[in-house]
Amino acid sequence: MKEAPKKIDHIGIAVKSIEEHVPFYENVLKLPLLRTEEVASQKVKVAFIGIGESKIELLEPLDESSPIAKFLEKKGEGIHHVALGVTDIESRLKEIQKDGIQAIDERPKKGAGGADVAFLHPKSTGRVLFELCEKKE
Amino acid sequence: MKEAPKKIDHIGIAVKSIEEHVPFYENVLKLPLLRTEEVASQKVKVAFIGIGESKIELLEPLDESSPIAKFLEKKGEGIHHVALGVTDIESRLKEIQKDGIQAIDERPKKGAGGADVAFLHPKSTGRVLFELCEKKE
Repeated sequence: MKEAPKKIDHIGIAVKSIEEHVPFYENVLKLPLLRTEEVASQKVKVAFIGIGESKIELLEPLDESSPIAKFLEKKGEGIHHVALGVTDIESRLKEIQKDGIQAIDERPKKGAGGADVAFLHPKSTGRVLFELCEKKE
Repeated sequence: MKEAPKKIDHIGIAVKSIEEHVPFYENVLKLPLLRTEEVASQKVKVAFIGIGESKIELLEPLDESSPIAKFLEKKGEGIHHVALGVTDIESRLKEIQKDGIQAIDERPKKGAGGADVAFLHPKSTGRVLFELCEKKE
């Protein structure tokens, strides 16, 4: 990649119920709940918690066909992915594939908050599910 | 907690070999390797990669008795913990326990880079291993 990611955009955490977990972040850690939304393409409801320049994204499956439902079934609740904030995601994704990294998404797709996102394959990245994420703000 | 964590201080990633994984961060993602060190108390070698206000901490066990060796044996390589950057860690840890959150470390201990750190029990936090981390800089 020519340009390094600027920040950890967010950490995605798979949960059975957003409602059950928000109080830990809001009431115990005192971090702000920024917003919740449904991402139809991923069949998830998400809640964003703010922390510094980053966010914690709680991911709750909307139905059993959601990738998050499958993750919960296999591994249980816990950290699902780490999103790296990038610029010019199309170029970054091409460069990274040229460097021999396998991408799950060959082209960026629309994620939560209207961001352009693309996941890299954990096989290529030491078993960490990284997402490239670009938010045009 | 009276004062919210200021940022994601770092994400800890368990690896079998730091040497094997640094090239992905340095050469592919173009993120800077800040330093490596050995943390005797945890029997790990760590490498810090810089990203925005945060860091990625690669954790390699120094021997088989290391908690990271046990993690690798049980779960394989991948994300191990998320460290929240706090101030006045002693007070934060007491407050959080008063709020019913179980701590692994009842008092802060010395971690990598001379930081004061304390882990919370994943049972209390939706199966995410959170660390409180205070660096007096």
